Amino acid sequence: MLTVSKRVKQTKPSYIRNILKVTRQADMLSLAGGLPDAELFPLDILTQAADELAQSPSIFQYGATEGLTELRQWLLEENSTAEDVLITTGSQQALDLIARSYLNPGDKVLCEAPSYLGALQVFDLAEAEIHTVIAEADGPNLAQLEQQLANYKIKLFYAVPDFQNPSGHCWSLSKRKAVASLLAKYKVALIEDAPYRQLRYQGEPLPTVSELSSYAAFHLGSFSKIATPGMRVGYVRAKQALLAPLIKVKQASDLHSAQPMQLMLLATVRHPSFAEHLDKLTNTYRTRRDYLAELLQQQLSDKLEFNVPQGGMFIWARLPHHNAMSLAEAALKQKVAIVPGDEFWPSKHTPDYQAIRLNFTALTEPQLEQAVSRLKKALQQCSPIK
Amino acid sequence: MLTVSKRVKQTKPSYIRNILKVTRQADMLSLAGGLPDAELFPLDILTQAADELAQSPSIFQYGATEGLTELRQWLLEENSTAEDVLITTGSQQALDLIARSYLNPGDKVLCEAPSYLGALQVFDLAEAEIHTVIAEADGPNLAQLEQQLANYKIKLFYAVPDFQNPSGHCWSLSKRKAVASLLAKYKVALIEDAPYRQLRYQGEPLPTVSELSSYAAFHLGSFSKIATPGMRVGYVRAKQALLAPLIKVKQASDLHSAQPMQLMLLATVRHPSFAEHLDKLTNTYRTRRDYLAELLQQQLSDKLEFNVPQGGMFIWARLPHHNAMSLAEAALKQKVAIVPGDEFWPSKHTPDYQAIRLNFTALTEPQLEQAVSRLKKALQQCSPIK
Repeated sequence: MLTVSKRVKQTKPSYIRNILKVTRQADMLSLAGGLPDAELFPLDILTQAADELAQSPSIFQYGATEGLTELRQWLLEENSTAEDVLITTGSQQALDLIARSYLNPGDKVLCEAPSYLGALQVFDLAEAEIHTVIAEADGPNLAQLEQQLANYKIKLFYAVPDFQNPSGHCWSLSKRKAVASLLAKYKVALIEDAPYRQLRYQGEPLPTVSELSSYAAFHLGSFSKIATPGMRVGYVRAKQALLAPLIKVKQASDLHSAQPMQLMLLATVRHPSFAEHLDKLTNTYRTRRDYLAELLQQQLSDKLEFNVPQGGMFIWARLPHHNAMSLAEAALKQKVAIVPGDEFWPSKHTPDYQAIRLNFTALTEPQLEQAVSRLKKALQQCSPIK
Repeated sequence: MLTVSKRVKQTKPSYIRNILKVTRQADMLSLAGGLPDAELFPLDILTQAADELAQSPSIFQYGATEGLTELRQWLLEENSTAEDVLITTGSQQALDLIARSYLNPGDKVLCEAPSYLGALQVFDLAEAEIHTVIAEADGPNLAQLEQQLANYKIKLFYAVPDFQNPSGHCWSLSKRKAVASLLAKYKVALIEDAPYRQLRYQGEPLPTVSELSSYAAFHLGSFSKIATPGMRVGYVRAKQALLAPLIKVKQASDLHSAQPMQLMLLATVRHPSFAEHLDKLTNTYRTRRDYLAELLQQQLSDKLEFNVPQGGMFIWARLPHHNAMSLAEAALKQKVAIVPGDEFWPSKHTPDYQAIRLNFTALTEPQLEQAVSRLKKALQQCSPIK
C-alpha cells in the first residue's frame, strides 16, 4: 500500500482529536477543548451579514489569494503599524504557511514550553527541530532564551504572549521589550500568535511584541474567539516581502479562503452592535473564569496549583502529586474531559512538570460545578505519584 | 533577512497570477482564466441557503476536520463505490494534502503533458520529481505510460480524465480501463481530478477511472464549476485508510474548512431548482463553446489547430507557426488575455509543441467575438517562428 511521507509519520496526533468521540457523548462535560460558547455567538449580527451576501454576487467568484480587499483594508486600519496582511483559513493556516515558506527539514524553531499543540504539529510537519524555552508567568525565561538564540541557529521563535494556550500567561511589558530586542540582536524572526488577545478580563492591553520588534515579525490574528470559529477566518500581518512566499504557498494550498465568510466576518465586526457583543462575551467568560477558579480553590487547592489568568480560555493547573495522563483517564471515567499537560511539549521532550489544562469558556456555571465535582472524584481515585 | 525554504524557491509562479492586475483592467477581455460566469451563479438558491444558516447555530462552532457529516453523507450517497470522503477548501487543497501526506522530496510523480498548472505547483512544493506522459485526445499514450511505470519508481499518477485542463481531452472508456489496469499492475496510486466532470455538453458520462481501479485511488471533486468557486468547497473520495494521513495534515493546515460554506453548498445542490440551474449552465456554456469554435474556425483556421472539446471550459489550440509566449504578449497589447501553453508543462521540461489555452465560459458571445477579433490582430502582429 501507499506509504506515508516522513513528515506525517513523525507528526504527533492530537489527544483532543483522539478523545473527540468520547467528549461528544451527551453525558460528558468537557473542560478539554478550546471552544467558545456557541450560545454566545452573535447570531443576529451574523444573520444580517448573511443577508448581505446576495447583494454581492461577485463574492461567490474566485478571489485573490491575499484575501478580500475590504477586509484586508479594515485589518490594516485597525493596526497602522502593519505593512501588509494576508487572510487565511483560520490563523492555524497562517502558521502552516509560514512554516512551509521558511523552514527546510532540520531547521531550528524555538517554542515556549508548554506551547500550543497545533503549532507543535505544524513544526513537526515541517520536519523542524523544536527547541524550547520555559514559559514563566510574565513571559519566557530570558536567560534561557538568550542561551538558545546564542547557541543554536534558531530561525523562528513561536510565541503566544497574550494569555497563552495552555498556560494562560500574559507577558509583561518589560519581557515583551526584552524579547523583541534579543530577537533583533540574534536576527531571529518572531511568530506572534494572538488569538486570545481580545479576551482580556482585567488590566490594560499591552503592545504586541511585533510592534516592539525591529526584526522580521509575523502577527497572527483570529476571529474564532471573538466572533465564531466555524467560519475559519484568520490573518497574518507582516511586511509585504515576508508575506510574498506565503501567498505563493497558499495559492497552491487552496487558491484562497472562502470569500463569503470573509465578507460576513467584516460585516460582523463592523456592525454597530459588535462592541456590545464583545462586552457580553468577555463579561460572561470573566464570570466563568472566576467561578471555576473559586471552585478549584475551595475544593482542590491541596491537589492543584494555579494562577488566575487575566484573559484567554484556560486555567493551567500544576499537579504536585499526580500524573496528568492517569488523571485524564480517570477523569474520562467520571465523564469529565481534561487535557494532560504532556500534550503541550514537543514529541521528543519530557514535560518539565505534571499539569492539566482546564477550559472555562464552553461550560455554564452549573456545568462547571458539576465538572469540578467529577474532577474531584477522579483525583480521589487516581493514585498519587510515589 | 529570512531566507525562504527550498520548496518555495523551486515552485513555479503562475502566469495567470502574474498577469492578474492586467486582466482586471476594465477594457481587457480575458480568455485566460478558468472562471465560471458569475452571471450564471444560482443566486436565488444561494440566498435561500444563506437564510438557513441562522437556523443552525452549531454550524458556526469548530467542526470536524473531515467535514460536515451531512455533506459527507450526501457525497457518499452520490457515489456508492466510494468508501470515505474528506471535505477540503476547494479540490486544490485535496491535491496539496495528498502530496504532503505521501510524497517525500525526490519521490516521483507522473502527470499528463500538458497538465493543470495548480497540480504542477503542488508537486513542486512537495519537491517531487515530475515525470510526464503525452496527453492524447482519448487519454494518455499507453505505451509511454507503461514505459514510465516500468522504468521509474512512480508513486502517484495525477490525471484529469474528464475534459482536461488545459487540453479539453476526455479519456475513452478503453483507455480508462487500460490505465486502471496498468496502475494496478505497477502498484501506482491514482489522483483523479474531476472538476469539469459535470460540465459535459454532449455524449454520455463515462465511468471514473477510480471506479475502474483496483489499486489505491483518490477521486477529487469540486463545486466550483457547477455552483460557485468563491465558497471553496471541494472533496476527495478514497478508502478510509488512504484519507487518514490527509486528515492529520489538514488538522495542522487549517483545522477544518468553513462550515457555513459546507452547509450552504449542501442546501444548494439539494435544492429542487438545482438541476434546472445546471441545465441552464451547461446549455449556455455549450453555446459559447460552439460560438468560439466557429469564430476560430472561420477566422483563424490557418493559424490555430484545435478539436472541439465535449465538455469543460477550454479550447486548446496548437500554434503551428507561432511562439505561444510571444503571442500572449502581443495579445495583451490588443487587450485580450490568453495563457501560453508552456505554463502547463513542468518547470524543467520543454513543451512538446506551441499552444494556447482559450476559456469559453466567462465571456458572452459578443465578448467572445470581440476577443477573437483582437486575437486575430495579435496573430497578425506576431512574427511566425522561422
